[in-house]
Amino acid sequence: MEQNLHQDLQKALPFWDLLSSEERAQIQESSAYVTLDKGAVIHRTEQGCQGVMQLCTGQLRVYLVSEEGKEVTLYRLHTGETCVMSASCFMDSIVFDVLIEAVESSTVLTIPPTILSSIVKRYPKAELELYKAASERFSDIMWTMQQILFLGIDRRMAIFLWDELTRNGAVLHLTHETIARYIGSAREVVTKVLNYFAQEGIVALERGKITILDKEELRKLIQ
Amino acid sequence: MEQNLHQDLQKALPFWDLLSSEERAQIQESSAYVTLDKGAVIHRTEQGCQGVMQLCTGQLRVYLVSEEGKEVTLYRLHTGETCVMSASCFMDSIVFDVLIEAVESSTVLTIPPTILSSIVKRYPKAELELYKAASERFSDIMWTMQQILFLGIDRRMAIFLWDELTRNGAVLHLTHETIARYIGSAREVVTKVLNYFAQEGIVALERGKITILDKEELRKLIQ
Repeated sequence: MEQNLHQDLQKALPFWDLLSSEERAQIQESSAYVTLDKGAVIHRTEQGCQGVMQLCTGQLRVYLVSEEGKEVTLYRLHTGETCVMSASCFMDSIVFDVLIEAVESSTVLTIPPTILSSIVKRYPKAELELYKAASERFSDIMWTMQQILFLGIDRRMAIFLWDELTRNGAVLHLTHETIARYIGSAREVVTKVLNYFAQEGIVALERGKITILDKEELRKLIQ
Repeated sequence: MEQNLHQDLQKALPFWDLLSSEERAQIQESSAYVTLDKGAVIHRTEQGCQGVMQLCTGQLRVYLVSEEGKEVTLYRLHTGETCVMSASCFMDSIVFDVLIEAVESSTVLTIPPTILSSIVKRYPKAELELYKAASERFSDIMWTMQQILFLGIDRRMAIFLWDELTRNGAVLHLTHETIARYIGSAREVVTKVLNYFAQEGIVALERGKITILDKEELRKLIQ
């Protein structure tokens, strides 16, 4: 476990090698593994600043939500990835807010903001690394936004299905409601597009289940 | 002019005070005032990296464009503001691309990427300041995106008109086409919403000209 903690911290903090052994020990002491139940949502204004989170198992979804409850998924994090948006509260230049949902039951290593802010005060390089990591995510977000703003809905759906196919295989256990949330659309639109895909023989639809039948056709829709 | 250059560089580079007099002299020598004609567009893949641009007079618009030519305005820069997105080419963590248009005839002080990259190699704090400035813009972009994704079109239009009112007064010389580009919508939709606003007595419409008549009503639409 000691070994894992060390490795997880090294992955989470690209500036780990800069730190003194005393500083490392401080971080190790204040960090903690936390289990997030499936569906758990982290929101900075409610739960305070989480700091940097290293995702050990599971999957996280980072998203925006409107006042009326409409959601747009910005990106997802998979095992081994680092969530830096959860630390944005002590990054002065980032003023907007996102929500983070555990899509599956997940384990995260949290490195709290108090210890991080004392480190970044001492090491501009450490703060730079955090901003760089945030900028990479912003680039992801921009890509997602461009898709939502510019792409046709059938193409967005095809990209989503292709993503799921390569990650989890050809059988998807997802409701139309959930897919709508992921691709930033409405359930009715998702149902319409999926029915069209089914007519074309690209997918087969059953209750709560979508099976991808024609990968070649799906791929053509993306290009 | 010498005095202006010094002031403009200090505004453009938040890390100016860190630099040695020799480094400052190098930056002064390699920087240049450039005039951008109204409508001029800067695109990094075509013209190479511009570096940091300090806007001395005029107005710049930073936007995305789809393959089909649909545009979405991300934010605008006014006199005295700094454009850091034009320097994103040497910021490794930013991989998406934006276009920059001179909305009016504009003068910019450009600080080229070659000199900047040698500076940021020496000063992590300088690179940090650039990433912070970029993150602030990302926050602006996120706000714009949230508006486009979540807000009703009439509210977006009201916010746009209110913005113009406070900046340039109650008479706007803008076509519906231009407004559509600014608020990320279609010309037809803009015309429809403006006609509705005119019926309500909020604006008066003439060819190429919109006059805001009822500020109170406009404000109500925003809240």
